[in-house]
Amino acid sequence: MLDIPTKPYGTLDLISVDDHIIEPGHVWTSRAPSKLKDRAPKVVVSDDGTEMWKVEDRLSPNVGLSTMAGRSYEEFTIKAQNFKDMRPGCYDAKERIKDLDLDGVKVSFCFPAVPGLGGESFMNIKDVELRDWAISAYNDYLIDEFQPVAPGRLMGLGILPLTEPEKAVAEMRRIAKLGVKGLSIPFWFHESVEGAKPLVDSVYDPIWTACEELDMPINLHIAAGRGAGGMSALSSGIPGMAEAFVTAAPLTNFDILSQIIWTGMLDRHPKLKVISSEGGIGWVPYFLERSDYTYEKHRYWTHSSLKQKPSEFFHRQCYVCFIHDEAGVFARHLIGVDNMMWESDYPHTDTTWPNSHDWVEKSMPGIPADERQKITYGNATRVYNLN
Amino acid sequence: MLDIPTKPYGTLDLISVDDHIIEPGHVWTSRAPSKLKDRAPKVVVSDDGTEMWKVEDRLSPNVGLSTMAGRSYEEFTIKAQNFKDMRPGCYDAKERIKDLDLDGVKVSFCFPAVPGLGGESFMNIKDVELRDWAISAYNDYLIDEFQPVAPGRLMGLGILPLTEPEKAVAEMRRIAKLGVKGLSIPFWFHESVEGAKPLVDSVYDPIWTACEELDMPINLHIAAGRGAGGMSALSSGIPGMAEAFVTAAPLTNFDILSQIIWTGMLDRHPKLKVISSEGGIGWVPYFLERSDYTYEKHRYWTHSSLKQKPSEFFHRQCYVCFIHDEAGVFARHLIGVDNMMWESDYPHTDTTWPNSHDWVEKSMPGIPADERQKITYGNATRVYNLN
Repeated sequence: MLDIPTKPYGTLDLISVDDHIIEPGHVWTSRAPSKLKDRAPKVVVSDDGTEMWKVEDRLSPNVGLSTMAGRSYEEFTIKAQNFKDMRPGCYDAKERIKDLDLDGVKVSFCFPAVPGLGGESFMNIKDVELRDWAISAYNDYLIDEFQPVAPGRLMGLGILPLTEPEKAVAEMRRIAKLGVKGLSIPFWFHESVEGAKPLVDSVYDPIWTACEELDMPINLHIAAGRGAGGMSALSSGIPGMAEAFVTAAPLTNFDILSQIIWTGMLDRHPKLKVISSEGGIGWVPYFLERSDYTYEKHRYWTHSSLKQKPSEFFHRQCYVCFIHDEAGVFARHLIGVDNMMWESDYPHTDTTWPNSHDWVEKSMPGIPADERQKITYGNATRVYNLN
Repeated sequence: MLDIPTKPYGTLDLISVDDHIIEPGHVWTSRAPSKLKDRAPKVVVSDDGTEMWKVEDRLSPNVGLSTMAGRSYEEFTIKAQNFKDMRPGCYDAKERIKDLDLDGVKVSFCFPAVPGLGGESFMNIKDVELRDWAISAYNDYLIDEFQPVAPGRLMGLGILPLTEPEKAVAEMRRIAKLGVKGLSIPFWFHESVEGAKPLVDSVYDPIWTACEELDMPINLHIAAGRGAGGMSALSSGIPGMAEAFVTAAPLTNFDILSQIIWTGMLDRHPKLKVISSEGGIGWVPYFLERSDYTYEKHRYWTHSSLKQKPSEFFHRQCYVCFIHDEAGVFARHLIGVDNMMWESDYPHTDTTWPNSHDWVEKSMPGIPADERQKITYGNATRVYNLN
């Protein structure tokens, strides 16, 4: 086990824009109307004692690597974890806020787990009544249970039934009124969700229009709806491919940012805010240079609709987040200090908890205080209109 | 058209490690023994007058974007090009060397086109006799026609029948003796070539052992055997996806370098030299940091076989190449100046021809002369044991 502090850190001057909820077992069963009681996602125990989430006919455990807060590197495991094996801060909001206090983190934006990082797993529920309710019930959990534990500090990212844009917009309007400040959107769900189109298809434009109107940032978490390049090789069973996957996974966000900019999604929705979560930042200087170079050289034969350089859309509307990224901090002026945000990733393996302030120190050696303040606090405050 | 110089540049102090051959129509027909004459890859003319390469039953044109040397950006096109539409330097070695002189490039390493960037298209020839001969005949073209035009300056990268490692090793030994100094290897051919396994599968180890023995660097060109992430979205027909593909294509080499290092290919073959071609370098500082971070955090649960940090294998055995990359040059000390090489990409759209010296100037503003010399000349000389 790590050496875990027993007292609050003292200062609370970090905002983490990327943490993760591990849903407690009652989220859906406790909210289900009687007609859905039997069908609600629930935890069942398999013959070998492993707790499994049951969603329609699909069974899946709480993945080890997603629940490792407090463990040392040597103790990390991919094996299924029952709730009793986890630090309670993983699944209990009251314990979560204590863990944030220990770490000196003031505000934490959290992604879902059971519904999929961007809700894509629930979008695949075949029973449409159950699907729509299960998505809304997750949002209700954020609104009536998770966030009230520490208003303004525990912030849940909402999910939507994206494949039906009208329903998605209605759900967004509902949850925005009830205090949800951002959305998690799966960026590659067209390959895994029945009836979905690529995220950049104009069929989803009404959703982004509503995001602009409600000032609702969308968060694109790496691997949401898709693995990194190399999945076919990953499943080859060749030793070392798991590490290659972990190494390359953040780069999925290079692809999706390219597509969002080039297809004109940001041109058509100039107030939409796009957040790249857990994608790191060290590759962003190359991304921006390569994008503008492509614009300079290739826009004639492609008949691009863009009238501005890709980097201008990025600087106006995109935010890239990192946990620990010395290469990106070194080249921060090639990225744009106003476009960078810090994340802690609690309770996944990459988390900086319970030493976030030490990691920030290590990650941003000697950078000016105003830049550090923007990255760790100021930009998130502005993007999410926090007080 | 670009303004093209009429006299040699004067100094010849650049080595381009990544240019492209556009094979003239006679490469296979002129070399075919009588029993293969009918089956040899050849150019046929379609009803609308377009020249098409015929390989078994497959027909494919010379792609416009691959033959654009001398065109202005506004003149770029993806449309099929007949030989008469191209600058002769594309397909005629005698004209090619004149073009190198105009540009001040001393040595040029060249990839194939018709066989696939790494020979993967020919590996898919069903007629095994034809397949093996067509691969060898390409190498013969390099040896008896292309390279002799300017010995030590025009350098062709050889291709191998990889799916049969014993044959591949025999062909490598044959062409090494005859003056081929490097190989082009398709890095993602297991998804497109019948019977192939992922490049990092140990079934190919005898090939890498022979590369070590013969000091034969392998060149992994972006998109060789595979497109960038996002191919399924590319084929969606959504406007802008072509540009997103061009922007993201270099990042395929992030994946393959991760896999080559993590699966122990460089650990098992400590003298193998791996060159990342057209992958750019601006993302490499992030790649190295992320790789070592993954090693620090994840090697316990994955039971990694590596006993050194990934960056150590990179610095010992990998070389990353770039055309124009200010972000990478800025962060060059996070990459390793000894591991960077320059490329011109003649006659593809990204080429710096005929202004390579201007581009180098623009790409490496104010960097010390010894570092610039390594990048533009010295490292390639060392890697390929040139005089």
